[in-house]
Amino acid sequence: MTFDGMWADLHPVGRDARSGGYRRFAWTGEDAALREWFTGEAGARGLELTADRAGNLWAWWGDPDADGPGLVLGSHLDSVPDGGAFDGPLGVVSALAAVDALRARGWTPGRPLGIAVFADEEGARFGVACAGSRIITGALDPDRARSLTDADGTTVAEAMAAAGLDPHHVGPDAEALRRVGAFVELHVEQGRALVDDPGGPPVGVASAIWPHGRWRLDLRGRADHAGTTRLADRDDPMLHLAEAVIAARRAAGEHDALATIGKLRVEPNGVNAIPSRVTAWLDARGPAEADVRSVVAAVGAAAGTEPVEESWTGATAFDAGLRDRLAGLLAAPVLPTGAGHDAGILSAAGIPTAMLFVRNPTGVSHSPQEHADPEDCHRGVDALARVVEELG
Amino acid sequence: MTFDGMWADLHPVGRDARSGGYRRFAWTGEDAALREWFTGEAGARGLELTADRAGNLWAWWGDPDADGPGLVLGSHLDSVPDGGAFDGPLGVVSALAAVDALRARGWTPGRPLGIAVFADEEGARFGVACAGSRIITGALDPDRARSLTDADGTTVAEAMAAAGLDPHHVGPDAEALRRVGAFVELHVEQGRALVDDPGGPPVGVASAIWPHGRWRLDLRGRADHAGTTRLADRDDPMLHLAEAVIAARRAAGEHDALATIGKLRVEPNGVNAIPSRVTAWLDARGPAEADVRSVVAAVGAAAGTEPVEESWTGATAFDAGLRDRLAGLLAAPVLPTGAGHDAGILSAAGIPTAMLFVRNPTGVSHSPQEHADPEDCHRGVDALARVVEELG
Repeated sequence: MTFDGMWADLHPVGRDARSGGYRRFAWTGEDAALREWFTGEAGARGLELTADRAGNLWAWWGDPDADGPGLVLGSHLDSVPDGGAFDGPLGVVSALAAVDALRARGWTPGRPLGIAVFADEEGARFGVACAGSRIITGALDPDRARSLTDADGTTVAEAMAAAGLDPHHVGPDAEALRRVGAFVELHVEQGRALVDDPGGPPVGVASAIWPHGRWRLDLRGRADHAGTTRLADRDDPMLHLAEAVIAARRAAGEHDALATIGKLRVEPNGVNAIPSRVTAWLDARGPAEADVRSVVAAVGAAAGTEPVEESWTGATAFDAGLRDRLAGLLAAPVLPTGAGHDAGILSAAGIPTAMLFVRNPTGVSHSPQEHADPEDCHRGVDALARVVEELG
Repeated sequence: MTFDGMWADLHPVGRDARSGGYRRFAWTGEDAALREWFTGEAGARGLELTADRAGNLWAWWGDPDADGPGLVLGSHLDSVPDGGAFDGPLGVVSALAAVDALRARGWTPGRPLGIAVFADEEGARFGVACAGSRIITGALDPDRARSLTDADGTTVAEAMAAAGLDPHHVGPDAEALRRVGAFVELHVEQGRALVDDPGGPPVGVASAIWPHGRWRLDLRGRADHAGTTRLADRDDPMLHLAEAVIAARRAAGEHDALATIGKLRVEPNGVNAIPSRVTAWLDARGPAEADVRSVVAAVGAAAGTEPVEESWTGATAFDAGLRDRLAGLLAAPVLPTGAGHDAGILSAAGIPTAMLFVRNPTGVSHSPQEHADPEDCHRGVDALARVVEELG
């Protein structure tokens, strides 16, 4: 199956016809279809498939236990709500296509070569991003992971059990990590650095991931009738939300950071009812941790509540030697990113790790407008194959 | 069945154990259970039950076609999300209990006496309040009524059909209205006028309903990644929402009105995605229509969008002669209200109409904290029975 053929196979899975975006959330039917698709592609190539203690999938060419550790490519297949087609799947499909390209020219690996599909990278359903890589590296406590809930109150443990996995098995997985000598994740660029360099190369190499985190704001008030309650008698949490939204934008500008309130839950969410409670989630990131912390504090002060930290990932610099080697090999520019990735989690756990970015003509991601031209995708596959020849 | 017995029967229907509030939405299973309960109570009293062309229920003691028009009591049984137990059901249960009290003392009606249960008063599911009374009076176009949709995309026509009604039958119903010589709705007070008068009477009489309406704000932006999109490149509709919320409160204060944004829909509603769209609903009311219009215009200007009017009801003064007669009969104070009611819709359609309010010790409504003491409820029944003796 060619890159274009695999891409066409994935096109309909979890696609929302109205938005043109994807809804591929962890441990759902869509997720199961994607995992089944990967299992089939691995089997068709004679790769040995295993699942680790977080349900991440690993397809091996060669035996990492006998001849490892190996070089691992890969990414994830889940999406944010109404996300694009490329964030995640591009790295998985490119890894499979790179294996095909290498085999077509008779190359055989000097050490085992793996392709990983990480579970629940986006955290769209249960709120913690990179859950699969965080669990196996010990960055996410297994009891906390199991008890995370989605909007319907379903826990991760229940969702994994429904997907046929044993949630009691969830936890750090030294055995799975021991097999990984190095990890390279190819990803669509989430920004404009490559496209804003006309005539420049379509592939870049990551330097670092900014420190980033998610906080929950619990804004409480008192439900009451919108038509009969005097302004002076109101305790309306929507006003605190408004102050938080404005403070987030202002503080981000002042501190050279990014801050976003993109998810809300309003209770009871009735047209003629003053809300009893508004829950808002704050995403904050930036080059410097102190600035990010200052932004979060400013939002909390404006909202009148202490933000509850749901996740935090410090600055992650990728392996400098590996980064420079790949940048030289590919004649590729070196770019920082504000987005978290499983590659960052593995790097923080001490695994030599690199990322390749493929040009995105819109610069937009986490949106149906996210894009990469087919020719650039094919050049990404070529780049990944050259990286494997160099490192494998 | 006594007032307290009927109250206990209704207690569990549609109750949310977590909030202690009620979720009784039009044309749902909960709504069917409530309609079935009323049908049973009417039958147990030998009242003749009919449904009109909007699905409103009418239980008649006597024949309004032969001996009408009659005097009608009643209210509604549906609720806002997590609403209280009293808003609506108090009027229906009190009307049934008043019939029992009158019969117990051997009274018989001089003209037919009806009890009405209006459908979809709160508009919680389909967005238009007082839908049942608006349809039969022609204030809501039947084609528009049929095509209103809930959050899942189900139309009123589909929901009514699922509930066993014929949606093609929906429309103005002169025959049902011709039977109504006068209408009296008893309701829990949605404010503090009665409770703030210690030692005062537990029942009041309504003077007027403020002009009030609902508007939709369609705030559009561009979905993008929260962690990689520069502030300057963002088109984030959440910022427009914040400006709208702040403008609503400020303008309401300036114009002696009320304005509330209590319902939101955020798309895609992901923690790490800048929203593509935020839909907000504005509820605005006040003693003077010009002031309400000024508030709505100020919110639209702040939000950068023209508010879409979803419903509007002009000022409704209840029949002055009837109001003064009942206030004198009951020695009850006369109070205005900001809340819309089916009584207001019938009054605007030319039917002599009055409302009684029963004291609410919290002053809160549309909330689980909404309350009326049992003794005050019983005095409300007594008041309603005296009104029937006077008018019936």
